[in-house]
Amino acid sequence: MSDIIKGPQLDRRGFMGATTLGTGAALIGLGAGSTALAQEAPSAAPQVDFPDERGAFGGGGSAAGAVNRTEMDLFDCEVEGHLPTDLDGVFYRVGPDPQYPKSPEYAGDIPFDGEGHVSMFRINNGHVDYRTRYARNARWKAQHAARRSLFGMYRNPSTDDPSVAGLNRGTANTQLFLHHGKLLVFKEDSPPVYMDPLTLDTMDEEYTFGGKLESQTHTAHPKVDPMTGGLIGFGYEATGFLSKDINVYEADRAGNIFWSVTVAAPYAGMMHDFCVTQDYIVLYLTNMAADAAQIAAGGVHFRYDSSLPTYLGVMRRGGDGRDLKWFTGPNLFCTHVMGGWNEGTKITVDWDGGEGNQFPFFPSLHEPWDPVKGTGYIRRFTVDVGSRTNDRFQSETIFPEIQGVLSRQDDRFHTLPYRWGYLQVTGPNGGWALIDHREGTSKIASVAGYSLSEMTFVPRSKNAEEGDGYLIGLGSSMAEAGRSDLMLFDTSDVDAGPVARVKMPFRCVGQVHGFWADASDIPGANAA
Amino acid sequence: MSDIIKGPQLDRRGFMGATTLGTGAALIGLGAGSTALAQEAPSAAPQVDFPDERGAFGGGGSAAGAVNRTEMDLFDCEVEGHLPTDLDGVFYRVGPDPQYPKSPEYAGDIPFDGEGHVSMFRINNGHVDYRTRYARNARWKAQHAARRSLFGMYRNPSTDDPSVAGLNRGTANTQLFLHHGKLLVFKEDSPPVYMDPLTLDTMDEEYTFGGKLESQTHTAHPKVDPMTGGLIGFGYEATGFLSKDINVYEADRAGNIFWSVTVAAPYAGMMHDFCVTQDYIVLYLTNMAADAAQIAAGGVHFRYDSSLPTYLGVMRRGGDGRDLKWFTGPNLFCTHVMGGWNEGTKITVDWDGGEGNQFPFFPSLHEPWDPVKGTGYIRRFTVDVGSRTNDRFQSETIFPEIQGVLSRQDDRFHTLPYRWGYLQVTGPNGGWALIDHREGTSKIASVAGYSLSEMTFVPRSKNAEEGDGYLIGLGSSMAEAGRSDLMLFDTSDVDAGPVARVKMPFRCVGQVHGFWADASDIPGANAA
Repeated sequence: MSDIIKGPQLDRRGFMGATTLGTGAALIGLGAGSTALAQEAPSAAPQVDFPDERGAFGGGGSAAGAVNRTEMDLFDCEVEGHLPTDLDGVFYRVGPDPQYPKSPEYAGDIPFDGEGHVSMFRINNGHVDYRTRYARNARWKAQHAARRSLFGMYRNPSTDDPSVAGLNRGTANTQLFLHHGKLLVFKEDSPPVYMDPLTLDTMDEEYTFGGKLESQTHTAHPKVDPMTGGLIGFGYEATGFLSKDINVYEADRAGNIFWSVTVAAPYAGMMHDFCVTQDYIVLYLTNMAADAAQIAAGGVHFRYDSSLPTYLGVMRRGGDGRDLKWFTGPNLFCTHVMGGWNEGTKITVDWDGGEGNQFPFFPSLHEPWDPVKGTGYIRRFTVDVGSRTNDRFQSETIFPEIQGVLSRQDDRFHTLPYRWGYLQVTGPNGGWALIDHREGTSKIASVAGYSLSEMTFVPRSKNAEEGDGYLIGLGSSMAEAGRSDLMLFDTSDVDAGPVARVKMPFRCVGQVHGFWADASDIPGANAA
Repeated sequence: MSDIIKGPQLDRRGFMGATTLGTGAALIGLGAGSTALAQEAPSAAPQVDFPDERGAFGGGGSAAGAVNRTEMDLFDCEVEGHLPTDLDGVFYRVGPDPQYPKSPEYAGDIPFDGEGHVSMFRINNGHVDYRTRYARNARWKAQHAARRSLFGMYRNPSTDDPSVAGLNRGTANTQLFLHHGKLLVFKEDSPPVYMDPLTLDTMDEEYTFGGKLESQTHTAHPKVDPMTGGLIGFGYEATGFLSKDINVYEADRAGNIFWSVTVAAPYAGMMHDFCVTQDYIVLYLTNMAADAAQIAAGGVHFRYDSSLPTYLGVMRRGGDGRDLKWFTGPNLFCTHVMGGWNEGTKITVDWDGGEGNQFPFFPSLHEPWDPVKGTGYIRRFTVDVGSRTNDRFQSETIFPEIQGVLSRQDDRFHTLPYRWGYLQVTGPNGGWALIDHREGTSKIASVAGYSLSEMTFVPRSKNAEEGDGYLIGLGSSMAEAGRSDLMLFDTSDVDAGPVARVKMPFRCVGQVHGFWADASDIPGANAA
């Protein structure tokens, strides 16, 4: 940390403490700091130095692996073990990778505000090529030109440098999907960024499905209907910043939006994931509430308010939205859908979720953050929407012996009854849990000495049976300063360890989520 | 190491032992293995897996840092300390970075045979951009297309895959120079590769100075005459593989070769560096002899023969070469010139050199490799070419308290009397020695916990006094699995430690040598 960017009037450590633990009131008046920065000429861009404090935005910097920032091409990676020669596709990943340190008054910003850095492993014929590129959207380009951070706190435009007022603040850092031949990269506060699925060139900074996307925002977790190949997505704060509106749409397999409806939430809060069944849209409103006062005071977008009820909202697919009904239940904080389906009017959705705040870097309004309450379990929500009088959903914790986050499934079974779910197991015996809902059993894939990122399921072939294939994801070697191996487990025998490891010469850029795309869905993937 | 590429008929460890310790006779018959490989279709390119054995070519692979292979762009690197804002130029580096594992019969090939991977740190206004690219010459392109190694042992075309017969085998992996606006990347067995000095795109795979380069080879260590800005270079084995011919040329500051002469060496042997003074060319023939029998037997190009005399060859610049005279002296094995000059007919050249073989991976003919004899000291050679009867040069070991390799100077003092030399100090108190020839003193720049690569001198400004500026080079953090910092020491106070460190998120690609180019010499470097 050079003293060039140390704020003269502000003790950062004190400020960060306030951000982490405090409320909006503690932050009042700090948002005004951006004005002074704008008066410097771009040529006076400060020397780039991330804070030393690990809790700060990009804290620890390059040496700590907190930032990577390097666009890479590694052709023909080194592979150990036996990579199946008939595996043909791309494993995509994306995560926040701070492009620049924040100005000191915003050094307490949260990791989720890092700019989206996409990586891909192109696997074909026993060979693997690695490539990474930033999503070069408006935000990235403005900061690149200025050689400095121009955006302040997480989803708080009042903290931005005046030079970027009105610019799309999206970071494209959460998840990506390959659909209708396009790699769509998502951040839930903005439209997708469309990147070329092979070159990772940014093709459209704000992809709106040919102007048909009515929402100003888009979830990081759309779903594919395997019966039609269509894409179903939604956005919250859909009609404007802090709005309670939710837009839900469905596009056909060619990306043409043919259904779009906008409904209202009980309040504006985080809606990170949703569930789509064959007949229903299932929304979930968490009590991670958007907080206008905290935002006005220069803080982050959300505040965890345990006094607010969480809601499960259900409506028919293809309807006009007037049938949307919000159900309450146990006040859980759920994040990712493992799977869900409906049998008639009876809906089942499995989530990972805790009893309390799962994101400690967002302030909690009523209580200090409780890691025990934040611990994730698989929560099975059921509700019968056939009853006019029922306004409650039921919740059951299944597989209570397994704690974890980042639940996934065989993505070909979105909307359908499913057998296999996957969970990132937290705790000392961490790894990837393979949950067999039919048999009620589970097993854990792990690698000694490695910390694993989120797993993604890869079908053995496009028409393989559910769950028959591989789990793929990054492992970080704890004894080698975090050096990465891409791990490939065969789901038929995870106890045997990875069937193949792609040995990387460095710690790969971090990720939130990953996605597998079959080569046959990627235009030009196997061009001569 | 997957068994896919294990050779069925050959025990690699046994073979490698023979290569490292043995003679040509031990290798007879192994060169024929390449034929079988050529019969496989390119689509059957083996899974990429470098050998586990650390002594093997690329041994240890990605995990050991033995290979990197990743082309990178890191815009605006993280900088700790104070990078002088008036420093404006590029620090270039190059080193061998094995593109592919060798086929098993050539796994004993030496590190010097890795393909050249160029990296650059563009420093301007307190900011640093990092980029790396392979030199994409004929060899690189052929192997890239085949996804496998096609070239066998070091400088031994008889071991190549038939598909690349006659192709330039050059690896462009040793040193680079910015001259007449072009980044020229050298391997002493081939013409330079011309790369764009900003994009690192390969512009000309075999740069011949507009067809004027008469040599088929080019040293990695040309010199610039600071009085004219011209470039003086040479090539050995200049007229053909294993030839004794040496071509020496001089080009003007625009790269037009205006003098070229070809002379003969007493025998064909390694001539890694040379010295140019204002009036003389000083060649040095080491007893690392080219060995036709060893080559025919499938071995590497050279064999250390302590029974052969080493020679210092001196001729006038600009002459017809007939005045070339070879002098003998103590049979030292010198590698790099620190500096040299002449006063009338009296010539002084400072080298780093040992009493014996400095490259243990080349076989020694008469004795086992002796690390003590290989230890480098600064050897001052003097000779008076004004005497017709003198056929000996004198050698004195100066600064005997310092052991090291990779000697350098302020490159602006090529050909001239000089004060400041630099040496990579080996041993437990390693670092960069700053040698003050005028005062007879020295000091060491080092960083606790870091292993340093070769240093390069950077003038404080283009017209700064000799030695006034910085030493720049990579440091590898031993506690962080080799993670790199680019270190910048101010030569006026190296005891203060680096004035700036560029903190990299990974271990950078390895290097042999580096070069500093002032931005004013790089076309377009400061284009808007």
